[in-house]
Amino acid sequence: MTGRLVVIGGDAAGMSAAMQVRRRQPDREIVVLERGGWTSYAACGIPYLVGGEVDDAEELVARPPEVFRSEHDIDVRLGWEARALDLDRRRVEAWDAAGSRTVDVDFDELVIATGAAPVRPDLPGVDDPMVHGVQTLDDGIRLLAATTGVRRAVVVGGGYIGLEMAEALVRRGVQVTIVEAAPQVMSTLDADVAAPLADAMVRMGIDLRLETPLEAVEDGGVVAGGERLPADLVVLGLGVRPIAGFAADAGIEVGVRGAIRVDRRQRTSAEGVWSAGDCCESFHLVARAPVHVALGTVANKQGRVAGVNIGGGYATFPGVLGTAVTRICDVEIGRTGLSEAEAERYGYVCVGASIEADIKARYLPDVRTIRIKAVAEAGTGRLLGAQIVGEEGTAKRIDVLATALTAGMTVAEIVDLDLGYAPPFGSVWDPVHLVARRLARHVDATPTS
Amino acid sequence: MTGRLVVIGGDAAGMSAAMQVRRRQPDREIVVLERGGWTSYAACGIPYLVGGEVDDAEELVARPPEVFRSEHDIDVRLGWEARALDLDRRRVEAWDAAGSRTVDVDFDELVIATGAAPVRPDLPGVDDPMVHGVQTLDDGIRLLAATTGVRRAVVVGGGYIGLEMAEALVRRGVQVTIVEAAPQVMSTLDADVAAPLADAMVRMGIDLRLETPLEAVEDGGVVAGGERLPADLVVLGLGVRPIAGFAADAGIEVGVRGAIRVDRRQRTSAEGVWSAGDCCESFHLVARAPVHVALGTVANKQGRVAGVNIGGGYATFPGVLGTAVTRICDVEIGRTGLSEAEAERYGYVCVGASIEADIKARYLPDVRTIRIKAVAEAGTGRLLGAQIVGEEGTAKRIDVLATALTAGMTVAEIVDLDLGYAPPFGSVWDPVHLVARRLARHVDATPTS
Repeated sequence: MTGRLVVIGGDAAGMSAAMQVRRRQPDREIVVLERGGWTSYAACGIPYLVGGEVDDAEELVARPPEVFRSEHDIDVRLGWEARALDLDRRRVEAWDAAGSRTVDVDFDELVIATGAAPVRPDLPGVDDPMVHGVQTLDDGIRLLAATTGVRRAVVVGGGYIGLEMAEALVRRGVQVTIVEAAPQVMSTLDADVAAPLADAMVRMGIDLRLETPLEAVEDGGVVAGGERLPADLVVLGLGVRPIAGFAADAGIEVGVRGAIRVDRRQRTSAEGVWSAGDCCESFHLVARAPVHVALGTVANKQGRVAGVNIGGGYATFPGVLGTAVTRICDVEIGRTGLSEAEAERYGYVCVGASIEADIKARYLPDVRTIRIKAVAEAGTGRLLGAQIVGEEGTAKRIDVLATALTAGMTVAEIVDLDLGYAPPFGSVWDPVHLVARRLARHVDATPTS
Repeated sequence: MTGRLVVIGGDAAGMSAAMQVRRRQPDREIVVLERGGWTSYAACGIPYLVGGEVDDAEELVARPPEVFRSEHDIDVRLGWEARALDLDRRRVEAWDAAGSRTVDVDFDELVIATGAAPVRPDLPGVDDPMVHGVQTLDDGIRLLAATTGVRRAVVVGGGYIGLEMAEALVRRGVQVTIVEAAPQVMSTLDADVAAPLADAMVRMGIDLRLETPLEAVEDGGVVAGGERLPADLVVLGLGVRPIAGFAADAGIEVGVRGAIRVDRRQRTSAEGVWSAGDCCESFHLVARAPVHVALGTVANKQGRVAGVNIGGGYATFPGVLGTAVTRICDVEIGRTGLSEAEAERYGYVCVGASIEADIKARYLPDVRTIRIKAVAEAGTGRLLGAQIVGEEGTAKRIDVLATALTAGMTVAEIVDLDLGYAPPFGSVWDPVHLVARRLARHVDATPTS
């Protein structure tokens, strides 16, 4: 198919798709509608902007609109938000909030890359201006401006974005309380792995309140767990939901959390309509089920795959493992695949085991510690997932386990891996080997028939 | 089989085997003959002992002989070197250098874990007392003692041990010259990857002389490349050869470089005789050929496999990738699989590609750089090997590629890997993705039929 390509959303997924099409079809008409004022920015960098490690929002922009326009002949239109979709007439209705008007934009093919929006719980006062969600770069800039003069902040939710924002605010000299409804931070980690992270937050002077659900936002504070907590600023870190309602309304099939359903080439259920990024589903390679994962890595890959296919090539996105890493205070975290709790939820009978090891020979100075928990299927010994918590230089070791997981390796095969060793990097048995060896003993000891 | 187990060699491979047998056979008689004065030590730590980062040789010992004797009932006998082997009479002849005598030690089963010895070229003066090889902990202690008062040293050979020893001597305040016969350092790396390492050596003030073969050792110096270089100390870094002559003399089959041939359970060609570690061969998983790799990681794994099998269990050692990492000055190096030159030698038609990337988002302070070169088979796109050179925190990324290599992944499959990302750890596209993407383009462009 050729004709006009319209891309809704000018961030990672949308612009990756647009660029791949441009590379293959130099003369094609490509229009991008972006509701914000930026293109191709690193949303994951927002906590570093708020925390002061990044001086200027523009540093987070990989490629500004002018470059797409002048160098790649992509018609980027800022400030337009898609509101409705007419599949028969091949037309998007877009809303210009600044000018209070709508326009219709015709398309031959369409990429929906609208991203996700922060979850706003339906509670009293949640629309108070001191309540901020953090998803777009515009959100980040508004939040940064709002921190001026703030003494006390409440962060709602102890997931990745909540903890990263809490740390950023502490760096700004703000007194921070985190309220989390669950009995642990980071629900994507098993409780035993998440515990040291909670300790690090407390060591940093953060008032961490678990099993404390937000109940209301009031003038000068919030109510959570039955208690009133004073605050000049509230940051929502309750996760995101896909921006896909207008697509569902047009009859495009949606799935998990309302995310747009796509096949392995990023095609939606509608002919000539593609989707990529935080607004659509991904296939989880271990769970063997669709999931909604809102991460920049996935968005870029899906956008690339959509663009290659639209441009006449062939590419597929096989799926995700839910791999994620982060650094909170002085603690690094990594995870891939299923946690023990998730594996059980997906019907696996599994065993878990943990090890603690050094990532430098113990006879050298300045040794750092890593803790790895890994989960394997009972009987087969196949790896199902792994989690890392440790000091600097540990989190990215998760990639070895993510690769083993992709290959469907058993723990016995992981023990045999020929991994690099020298004293500045660990011991002869790598931490990955150690956890696989420990797990292998548990797997053997688990009756399966 | 049961009866007396004799293990020749009390370092990584030998003691791993002994301990695995002890775990499975609590009452079995186990005798270990060790030619040196130590057991289970980290030979890879010797450069850090010589360089002063480790204060005491004993810190490099993981488990001393007393512990094996008292806690594990293993009869460790120090100072005995195996000289001859009588397979019919099931007997080892051992030589006690200190007492100038030999004894015969009977065995029912035998593990040969004699390790390797530094290559000493057959050149005039090479037996001069100022010439040191570095392999055993005793070698390291002698060398450390010999550095006192040394002003100028010549290191012969620019491989791992040569470069590590050169750096250690510089830390001791010694003026160091490296003489290397080849036109590059680190022959296990492709020339383009090795070049930045050579630059780092020069920046550290080392006089690096390539294409400069050692010709002779003389009073007060060496002759290399036709020139006389003054030196009070000469360190050999020309690699090692397996200590396996006595086994070959007894009729045990040997292979590459005279290393003992073993099957995947670490059995030699002789009934009831096993071998593990630097004295025996390994199977290279990419070259599909036996190789001789003298590394502590391999020795530990092979020793464990031998011990499990001797103890009545079943374990196999599938093979190696030649994975290695090291840190020289401020440069980290990693490699796995075949270099481009090696791949061609083994008959592969291959393509290579390199990328340079940051291991932190470019908008954060203190960004470090990684360079990855990867090699893939033309046509199939299957990964054959990879090499890393970079700043702190880069070398261990080689493990991701080693794992992908073990799984037989293509570069297209590597592009799809779900690797961890957050701004403190890099960009949305991991360096591993980037090199795979670049390589994928080259693979596609290579005509194969």
